Amino acid sequence: MEPIDRVRVVTREGDREAEREDSLAVEEPLEIRIRAGGDGQLSSFVTTMRTPGNDPELAAGLLFAEGVLQSGSDLLRLDRPTDPRIDSDLRVNVLIATLEREAFERARRLQRGTVMGSACGVCGKTSIENVIPADQPPLESPLRVSPEFLYSLSGRLLERQSIFSKTGGLHAAALFAPDGSLRELAEDIGRHNATDKLVGAFFLRNQLPLSDSVLMVSGRAGFEIVQKAFTAGVPIVASVSAPSSLAVELAQTGGITLIGFIRERRFNVYANAQRVCSPGPSAKDS
Amino acid sequence: MEPIDRVRVVTREGDREAEREDSLAVEEPLEIRIRAGGDGQLSSFVTTMRTPGNDPELAAGLLFAEGVLQSGSDLLRLDRPTDPRIDSDLRVNVLIATLEREAFERARRLQRGTVMGSACGVCGKTSIENVIPADQPPLESPLRVSPEFLYSLSGRLLERQSIFSKTGGLHAAALFAPDGSLRELAEDIGRHNATDKLVGAFFLRNQLPLSDSVLMVSGRAGFEIVQKAFTAGVPIVASVSAPSSLAVELAQTGGITLIGFIRERRFNVYANAQRVCSPGPSAKDS
Repeated sequence: MEPIDRVRVVTREGDREAEREDSLAVEEPLEIRIRAGGDGQLSSFVTTMRTPGNDPELAAGLLFAEGVLQSGSDLLRLDRPTDPRIDSDLRVNVLIATLEREAFERARRLQRGTVMGSACGVCGKTSIENVIPADQPPLESPLRVSPEFLYSLSGRLLERQSIFSKTGGLHAAALFAPDGSLRELAEDIGRHNATDKLVGAFFLRNQLPLSDSVLMVSGRAGFEIVQKAFTAGVPIVASVSAPSSLAVELAQTGGITLIGFIRERRFNVYANAQRVCSPGPSAKDS
Repeated sequence: MEPIDRVRVVTREGDREAEREDSLAVEEPLEIRIRAGGDGQLSSFVTTMRTPGNDPELAAGLLFAEGVLQSGSDLLRLDRPTDPRIDSDLRVNVLIATLEREAFERARRLQRGTVMGSACGVCGKTSIENVIPADQPPLESPLRVSPEFLYSLSGRLLERQSIFSKTGGLHAAALFAPDGSLRELAEDIGRHNATDKLVGAFFLRNQLPLSDSVLMVSGRAGFEIVQKAFTAGVPIVASVSAPSSLAVELAQTGGITLIGFIRERRFNVYANAQRVCSPGPSAKDS
């Protein structure tokens, strides 16, 4: 399935009307089904609206963000369904995660609640008391970045966003190494999906936690983006737009440096500013 | 609870660093609990991350969009909890919906699945086959609008967005009458919440369906925005940004006129363009 769809559109500009072809970001549901290794009992864990592409990464990243997957050995397999009752053209919208017994039990516990976020991802934590994790220590990381490094991020994000420029409809999440090189970029109609795809790629390569990386997201930084970064061990989160109050709160308590409104040569630091080198004497760091 | 929070922020501009106060959009969880009228058995239906304000409208709109509420009599009451086990400052983050027996049963059926969208709202429809409603006829409405009417919408949306301008972090959804007057506007950190607050306000006043209104949203128009409009009977949906492929598909089959990229004096029509008056002879309509 392609991430871009073509559609006929009527365009109005002032008094002129025209018809032309336009590109749309594809949005399709992905249903993640789970089963325990050994027995074949399937159940539906979640359906997320996503842009097709990197589905295994999305499924792994989402199950990791939800706390179902905690280590590489928790995920035994990811398969497309073979059930003949599912239309063959719908099978690309389903992934089956075969889980180790304990991971499966965690998923079953989450299934008992129905939870969603302002743009998804708090799934399964039905009681408000559980939204902010109290039992985890704040992230510690010696990672430091210069203002010049941060100024360069949004340009590089846009440069590499292949689909966004065509449709204006996709979000991107990218992971940068401290030397400024791009480690990975993911695009999706949902910011949270893009972040899950990104983290999921590292999960599947057994490369978590990401303690030496900077996460950059194209949209706003809400609570769930910071929560996903926290779970993946990312110490610095940057966004081109505004953070929310709860995102700042979680960044403060979680030891995450949270940067917002990166535009041209300016940005705001909302939490743990010690990881951004100061101007003046330390400007040589850039 | 205020919709805006104040925070100390470190600002970098080029080589200058400063500290100042900044406004943030508040993001807090709202847990919607349900019970059947008569007995007191409570269960958690959903937790959504939202900006406080218009919580009853949000709860009603969300339960309506999910198909739990189908008519005004389905909702018996909305109350804050009195349970002493909930901290008093957390009670503002919980609403209890007391439902008629049949609405309660519909909610219970949805609770058995955990579903989320790219930015939420497909909740409860765990099987892909159910995402596009097949049993409902397309919307029919004689409503027509002129290009001039559409050109004016985004300006008026921004003009009335009180919180957005301060924080850059909120989405808005607004309902306009055919004469161009604003019927209602709602703001939230989530686009879907803003739409739910808007529709919920009309639900609580027993003023659905909204067959003579135009819905305008500040962000992109994904599937779930069009789905919410469809459920509320809104025949014209306009957004300042891109629609998704599935949003266009649903608009086409659901009889909804879908307009995107409204900017200055231009826009695109993605479905059911017959409700937008043509230029030339009919320009007098404007």
